[in-house]
Amino acid sequence: MSNTTRNFSSQTLIDVTKRVLGAMGAPDPAAAAVAKSLVLSNLVGHDSHGIIRLVEYSGWVEQGHLIPAAQPKIAFEKEATAEIDGNWGWGQTASYLATEKLVDLTKQYGTATVVLKRTNHVGRLGEYVDLMATAGLMGIAFCNTGGPIVAPFGGYKRVMGTNPFAWALPGSGEFNYVLDFSTAIVAAGKIILAGMSGEELPSGLLLDKDGNFTTNADDLTKGGSLLTFGGHKGSGISVLIDLAAGILSGNMPAAISDSGYGNGTVLIGVDVSRFASIALFQSVGREFELIMHNAGTPNSVLMPGEFEHKTLTDRDKSGISLTQGVITNILEVADRYQVKIPEFI
Amino acid sequence: MSNTTRNFSSQTLIDVTKRVLGAMGAPDPAAAAVAKSLVLSNLVGHDSHGIIRLVEYSGWVEQGHLIPAAQPKIAFEKEATAEIDGNWGWGQTASYLATEKLVDLTKQYGTATVVLKRTNHVGRLGEYVDLMATAGLMGIAFCNTGGPIVAPFGGYKRVMGTNPFAWALPGSGEFNYVLDFSTAIVAAGKIILAGMSGEELPSGLLLDKDGNFTTNADDLTKGGSLLTFGGHKGSGISVLIDLAAGILSGNMPAAISDSGYGNGTVLIGVDVSRFASIALFQSVGREFELIMHNAGTPNSVLMPGEFEHKTLTDRDKSGISLTQGVITNILEVADRYQVKIPEFI
Repeated sequence: MSNTTRNFSSQTLIDVTKRVLGAMGAPDPAAAAVAKSLVLSNLVGHDSHGIIRLVEYSGWVEQGHLIPAAQPKIAFEKEATAEIDGNWGWGQTASYLATEKLVDLTKQYGTATVVLKRTNHVGRLGEYVDLMATAGLMGIAFCNTGGPIVAPFGGYKRVMGTNPFAWALPGSGEFNYVLDFSTAIVAAGKIILAGMSGEELPSGLLLDKDGNFTTNADDLTKGGSLLTFGGHKGSGISVLIDLAAGILSGNMPAAISDSGYGNGTVLIGVDVSRFASIALFQSVGREFELIMHNAGTPNSVLMPGEFEHKTLTDRDKSGISLTQGVITNILEVADRYQVKIPEFI
Repeated sequence: MSNTTRNFSSQTLIDVTKRVLGAMGAPDPAAAAVAKSLVLSNLVGHDSHGIIRLVEYSGWVEQGHLIPAAQPKIAFEKEATAEIDGNWGWGQTASYLATEKLVDLTKQYGTATVVLKRTNHVGRLGEYVDLMATAGLMGIAFCNTGGPIVAPFGGYKRVMGTNPFAWALPGSGEFNYVLDFSTAIVAAGKIILAGMSGEELPSGLLLDKDGNFTTNADDLTKGGSLLTFGGHKGSGISVLIDLAAGILSGNMPAAISDSGYGNGTVLIGVDVSRFASIALFQSVGREFELIMHNAGTPNSVLMPGEFEHKTLTDRDKSGISLTQGVITNILEVADRYQVKIPEFI
């Protein structure tokens, strides 16, 4: 039952999401911005960061972690640096303000760094570095995530969060080259879903609480730890994100923070036109894409961001599929806020 | 025979290396700087980046790729950005100039980006980000390397070089947190050495020219490719380094460049004191180190840069071991330049 799917246009999902967010207390512009951001994640194929997040967000609103009417503001701005205070409102609106400020400062100084503090889930970092690349920047973004669940290389205890890293460059014209990944070897959500369906995990992803490899997904909720991607190299990236983003934002590393939630976020921009023209990026990009597409069997090699670009193009035309499970979850949230969703009935 | 080792003080190796570099045509200050940089790699335990590189450098000097008397200069400087022209001299002296300029601009603007063009092998990127961290910066450095030898995720043809990435933060006081890694799954040099000794490789490192996994190291020199670390995530990092560092520096991505050598290099700095005090970095660092050291079995978990710090401390006291093979190789180079090395006889 919960695996049957139904298809919706992105506009329908934006409308639905905006109504639910508004009922949670988000002012109109914030509800519109967060709804658009969540549905964009569905559009580019990252449903884990799509409108299913309404479930989590409603919980945070009810616990007082997420203040739905709070407005982000610029805490300070000095030469090529600025800090945005999210005031514990919506992470997406704070991230848009941070991205806008980053692009402005980068255009002015050639490079800039913006730190985002006191913010809830910022959503998909790839969205913000993509905006930077569209503005002609090389964009870098990383954030630490509350609640340690990942073990460092060589260990088995929970130290880091899933600490994502994103990096984008202007592309050949059709799409930007956007890389966006969790430094955990696999999303915690996927392990939990496997546990619910009684599925056995591939080996090498999860350690039990005593540090033994396990294929039993339930070991994660019994004190186990995810590994990082990429062995000691990926572990090092995760550790430096936890320290850099945690300390610079004041969110603190996951194992030290007493909040257990929030995303300390760092955005860095470089105006590529200081060093090379956008036209050169486009022509070299076109040549490089061809080399990549010929480096394997047909369609086996993609540029960073190409999967998302293709998926967006497809789903713009054919709509977004939601499972009945996701629909039921969102209807439950809507029900708590007395929002009617005739589109889902 | 070539596996027997002899022990030397770092000062002896610096003296020897400086004499050989001087005989190749390096002016005194450049010879001293490059010698110190190479021996530092031996001191911190990365012998692959140590004085054995004299062999490769002498070849480049003889082929005219490396101009030993060339001086790096500042090509332009504008607000928080600058470009250093290595003039195809020693990569290390160009990198020191770039690092110095980066620290100055970062202190002035809060963040800065310096691109280094027309330079030979820059050495170990970790050295430069470590200097940045000592100056109170978060330092990021990456460079693309000439000569494609690495296949992108999903493919098997050679597209990228071994494109290293380095990142450092101020530590708790004893050492900075320095991450420095090749985006290839393993150093090409290690595969070649395994081939020479007829050793079988672990699986999962190397593809033959037709895209099949192979454990025969000789397949690398027969048109095979190394994989990247970390699956599609590590591959994405390698691709973005190739494009960003290649285009910004004018060195071009490895598969497009017609030089086949040189390191296009990008350095990015953030003055952490704009956002958080160095004292906070130190106190959180101390707490985080304890958590890491208790996250596994005794000594199983290290901070980024901790191995290098321990090795430096040890080798400072006990000296640096060179195999007879390395000594013979360096004596051969010295002989070509009529340099006597009584220390090695």
